Amino acid sequence: MLSAHARGRLTVVLVGARNPQNIGAAARAMRDFGFTDLRVVNDFTPPFEAAQLEATSAVRAEDVMRAARLYSNFPEAIADCHVIAGTTAIGGRGLRLPVLPLQEVAPALLNALETLPPPATDLAQPSGASRVALLFGSEKTGLTNEQLSYCTHLLTIPMFAPEGRHLSMNLGQSVAVCLYELTRSGFEGAREMPATPGVPASTGERERLLELLTELLTRNDYARRFPANTRVEVLRQLVAQLGQTKDEAATWMGILKMTLRRLPE
Amino acid sequence: MLSAHARGRLTVVLVGARNPQNIGAAARAMRDFGFTDLRVVNDFTPPFEAAQLEATSAVRAEDVMRAARLYSNFPEAIADCHVIAGTTAIGGRGLRLPVLPLQEVAPALLNALETLPPPATDLAQPSGASRVALLFGSEKTGLTNEQLSYCTHLLTIPMFAPEGRHLSMNLGQSVAVCLYELTRSGFEGAREMPATPGVPASTGERERLLELLTELLTRNDYARRFPANTRVEVLRQLVAQLGQTKDEAATWMGILKMTLRRLPE
Repeated sequence: MLSAHARGRLTVVLVGARNPQNIGAAARAMRDFGFTDLRVVNDFTPPFEAAQLEATSAVRAEDVMRAARLYSNFPEAIADCHVIAGTTAIGGRGLRLPVLPLQEVAPALLNALETLPPPATDLAQPSGASRVALLFGSEKTGLTNEQLSYCTHLLTIPMFAPEGRHLSMNLGQSVAVCLYELTRSGFEGAREMPATPGVPASTGERERLLELLTELLTRNDYARRFPANTRVEVLRQLVAQLGQTKDEAATWMGILKMTLRRLPE
Repeated sequence: MLSAHARGRLTVVLVGARNPQNIGAAARAMRDFGFTDLRVVNDFTPPFEAAQLEATSAVRAEDVMRAARLYSNFPEAIADCHVIAGTTAIGGRGLRLPVLPLQEVAPALLNALETLPPPATDLAQPSGASRVALLFGSEKTGLTNEQLSYCTHLLTIPMFAPEGRHLSMNLGQSVAVCLYELTRSGFEGAREMPATPGVPASTGERERLLELLTELLTRNDYARRFPANTRVEVLRQLVAQLGQTKDEAATWMGILKMTLRRLPE
């Protein structure tokens, strides 16, 4: 069974959900499995507002919907998340991370939920916060490649896929299945996992690394000669490997800064 | 992976579902996980008919809904089923069978799905048929004690239940979670979506990367200032993360070489 502490640090992020009923269904699944932090990323507010209205009457997930937050900016919604799991039905489409079945990713997520250090009390230091995000894309298109490039884990729900069938699961059902898996595996999974070798780097730290690497690739002329290798979503994945922990991120930042200082302009 | 044969003998029975959208959602979850036999038990037909109408347009579970059958009589709906698992959020309420968490009942159901004798070809002898039924009650009241008494197994989805909270999960989500559990367990051992990120880099390639990185750290003065970070066993681990695949190793070699070419000696 997940501890209350672990439950409290899971964040469900719905990116671009268009149907208020689906947002409400996700909130309801969260309530059913005891999770509370819902974030909705949307360019326009109507679906979110409609879901909040509906929740107060019928869906009985009032607590979750009332506390839910709306973001217009995707990176902001995950800024305090260190472990970021993206769900995808289609697969990586050229992404570096392997797409694993939900049940194989769950142990790592459970381990992070139980072992990440508590969020910093100092609000001026958001990098001290440490949450685990579970991302779901829009009903039609899922998560974009750019959104997937922020992820530290990619997972898929193991559906039945005869040749040529387009796979896509109802959003509320996807959320329910993922949260069930985390609840189901509860302890066994977390116990089996070895301790993480360090504190995971934050999204902010990884983005700073990405900036430095991008500058290097401009200054050393690599970007001009190999533009395909230097698309931002490719680089973000390279950086995710460099900076898995705070220590590693710090080391690579140091290396990149000292290199840039010595490179001719 | 469940065999097609095993998939084909699972029957999902919705007893007294009132909301056509829930019936449609159950059908959609069945399609997603590759199950086909849906039976709806209802005293009145409107929800079933509405679900069938809807399925032909939006929900994209046409095949399942078109083949679905409506029963007015509960025992008839399960007459050809030998293993009957009833879902309940509340518990047995005086029934003889224990109510077990879904994940503990799943192995028995999977075993039955794979090993029950094939249905009789003689249609005059329905008792020769052998199917596994998964029963779901109405949204409001769940399965009655009488309906539960037909069951050979009772299961509950492990929800988060603080003191005094009435537990009930959305019907479509319940069906999705149960079918996921059957699919999930069937998957164990056999990884379906390997999506390996590429051919692993060789030791030689990683060592070459290590040489280039070491040269960079000398040339940019990092090694002199942070000797603890530049011990060879530390660097080898950093390099192992950089160059997991041949492609990644090649990219980083290119980046390092072009940087070295531009760095002053």
